[in-house]
Amino acid sequence: MDILVLGGDGYLGWPTALYLSRRGHRVGVVDNFARRGYDLEMGVDSLVPIVNLQQRVRRWHEISDLAIDVFVGDLTDASFVSETLASFKPEAVVHFAEQRSAPYSMIDRKHAVYTQVNNVAGTLNLLYAIAEQNRDIHLVKLGTMGEYGTPNIDIEEGYIEITHRGRTDVLPYPKQPGSFYHLSKVHDSANIMFACRIWGIRATDLNQGIVYGHQTEETVLHPDLATRFDYDGVFGTVLNRFCVQAVTGHPLTVYGAGGQTRGMLNILDTLACVELALHHPADPGEFRVFNQFTESFSVQEMAELVVAEYSGDAVIEHSQDPRVEKEDHYYRAAHTKLLDLGLNPHLLTSSVIQSMLAVTDKYKAAVDLAAIRPTVEWRSTASGLATSGSAGGSAGTSGGTEVDPLASVN
Amino acid sequence: MDILVLGGDGYLGWPTALYLSRRGHRVGVVDNFARRGYDLEMGVDSLVPIVNLQQRVRRWHEISDLAIDVFVGDLTDASFVSETLASFKPEAVVHFAEQRSAPYSMIDRKHAVYTQVNNVAGTLNLLYAIAEQNRDIHLVKLGTMGEYGTPNIDIEEGYIEITHRGRTDVLPYPKQPGSFYHLSKVHDSANIMFACRIWGIRATDLNQGIVYGHQTEETVLHPDLATRFDYDGVFGTVLNRFCVQAVTGHPLTVYGAGGQTRGMLNILDTLACVELALHHPADPGEFRVFNQFTESFSVQEMAELVVAEYSGDAVIEHSQDPRVEKEDHYYRAAHTKLLDLGLNPHLLTSSVIQSMLAVTDKYKAAVDLAAIRPTVEWRSTASGLATSGSAGGSAGTSGGTEVDPLASVN
Repeated sequence: MDILVLGGDGYLGWPTALYLSRRGHRVGVVDNFARRGYDLEMGVDSLVPIVNLQQRVRRWHEISDLAIDVFVGDLTDASFVSETLASFKPEAVVHFAEQRSAPYSMIDRKHAVYTQVNNVAGTLNLLYAIAEQNRDIHLVKLGTMGEYGTPNIDIEEGYIEITHRGRTDVLPYPKQPGSFYHLSKVHDSANIMFACRIWGIRATDLNQGIVYGHQTEETVLHPDLATRFDYDGVFGTVLNRFCVQAVTGHPLTVYGAGGQTRGMLNILDTLACVELALHHPADPGEFRVFNQFTESFSVQEMAELVVAEYSGDAVIEHSQDPRVEKEDHYYRAAHTKLLDLGLNPHLLTSSVIQSMLAVTDKYKAAVDLAAIRPTVEWRSTASGLATSGSAGGSAGTSGGTEVDPLASVN
Repeated sequence: MDILVLGGDGYLGWPTALYLSRRGHRVGVVDNFARRGYDLEMGVDSLVPIVNLQQRVRRWHEISDLAIDVFVGDLTDASFVSETLASFKPEAVVHFAEQRSAPYSMIDRKHAVYTQVNNVAGTLNLLYAIAEQNRDIHLVKLGTMGEYGTPNIDIEEGYIEITHRGRTDVLPYPKQPGSFYHLSKVHDSANIMFACRIWGIRATDLNQGIVYGHQTEETVLHPDLATRFDYDGVFGTVLNRFCVQAVTGHPLTVYGAGGQTRGMLNILDTLACVELALHHPADPGEFRVFNQFTESFSVQEMAELVVAEYSGDAVIEHSQDPRVEKEDHYYRAAHTKLLDLGLNPHLLTSSVIQSMLAVTDKYKAAVDLAAIRPTVEWRSTASGLATSGSAGGSAGTSGGTEVDPLASVN
């Protein structure tokens, strides 16, 4: 299959590109390097060193004899999107190319507007390019379980049958996203659903849980093929953070009682799910939603798992939640559609946590503890982060000097 | 009350500003004249002549001895929004300032992206300015009944109680908007709901039906106080179009069987509803949704009403629907909350249609029949309209050379 991976230089985009390339697909990656730019803006970096995209692709070719095409550009540039699709002529597009951090979107007005405009306009440009050039292209779009929020009823996969005043209909599942980032994903989903309806486009929305893990069969082949490992307060994910806190002898910080429950999945399952979606495309005009996670854990449970696996001493510390979210809530979400297609989950076993702790330990000298700290307070309108973009607009409502280990739960 | 009317130079914004001014409120209007710009772009104009905003405000002062402040600028300019709120210090903001035409948003990629970025980013800037300066400001935001689409169950006011697998929750009502414009309103609603939750802002979302009527107690006081009367294929509304077609001796064009049913309301009720919302503000943190319409009609019924009232001969003509929508569907939508607050509806009586026919007849020499014509075809990605903005991106999928009398149903 001819597959374009948008955001192919990122944490998941790069391993996805390698995985699909190794399985015999013709792969192109598209990236504007925004993710590396956020690192520069925040003054943080991936704990595991990563080389640049061109070096990655050269190394992959050297090792596998497989070529990956590189397209450098921005999805908000409609001409670039149109020209890239016209040049590569993909049969499928896997779309990771969005600003994907909730805390980043909540830094201040500028970052909120950037996140929504970037994600929504980029996806609109992509939808138009598909509609104009080839409506048969299968769009596989990464969404997030965070679109649903935490309703007091079971979460279904994209749609729900509602009986109301004696009548019944199947309607889009009501969404209660918890950040301007999550809202941007909800906006995308609604736009894509409409594009499928009016243009007959085929799309799969993968509402992904929080991904953990760092190594895939391909990334371990050479250090130059490694993907990112983020633990900072804005882009780091919760398990990574706990591992870093454990190996550096710091308490694992959990907000409130830590009852916030989220769907999780192994990076290996992200790759498998994307492949399953590609091999079983949506029908023309179909907007299909898969909930892409394998297990649910509360934040407290994740902290306890890391404490249990860590060979040294590790303790859990509770503090106030900078987000506006329920700390104790019902959570049960359907995730059978990918299993039905044949997904064979990699669960969060001892050995997975051990391997994450090993990666963290290997690079522990490079840990910047300041990067884990503070950051973004949902209730304020300006975080006080000293970033290039955080100027302006703050009128005495900023707060957010607390530690935020949940910041990256998306 | 100190009230800022955003989009105060528009069809509804201007009469709203006059109405509130006359009732003793201190009123400021904000506008970037985008609406007049769309006329220039499309080569069309209001059938009833309108003078510029400064002239309108001077005439109002001359007649009423009441002052209205004018702020010229764009909501996508965050500094302008922030400075305007800081200068006027409103207790309430009535927000009409969005691109509000479904067909305009469907012209091509550029117009779709413009509509969503303009509406979403403008509203985000406003939300941040309120959160930063005074979280007690009551935001009264104009939404549209079109956000809901046409589900096969009753439409409720913003929320719906769902019982699912033995559990119950009240969740945001599922939306199925029918254009990139309607989607922008859905995005806005989700963003505002979230802002209320995290910042304690108070907001009322008025999901308005299709407004008809042209004259209010204030606009009739002098020709310089008149508001717009649009009948063109992109911004005109359906009743206006039928009146123009009748008085110019052309068939009233209806798509398919004309069973598309929509909520409608008189312009006088728009003013009354906005005032009721202002006098009964939402609670801090509350995102309140009112369905703002008084009666439902199918397009066929509206055409028949005009035919019945018109003194001359008028006929109805059916043709293909350029939109992707159901031509025959269930439609029952709650609209009791505004009635509970005391709304006393002005219904679509013979005399209302007579007065619209009279306005149309008065200006019939100015009718540009070409403006009613063709326009925007939902299934294509480029309408072929000869506008300044419609260049680029079209790759042989354009169509849309048919008449579209429903185009302005929002």
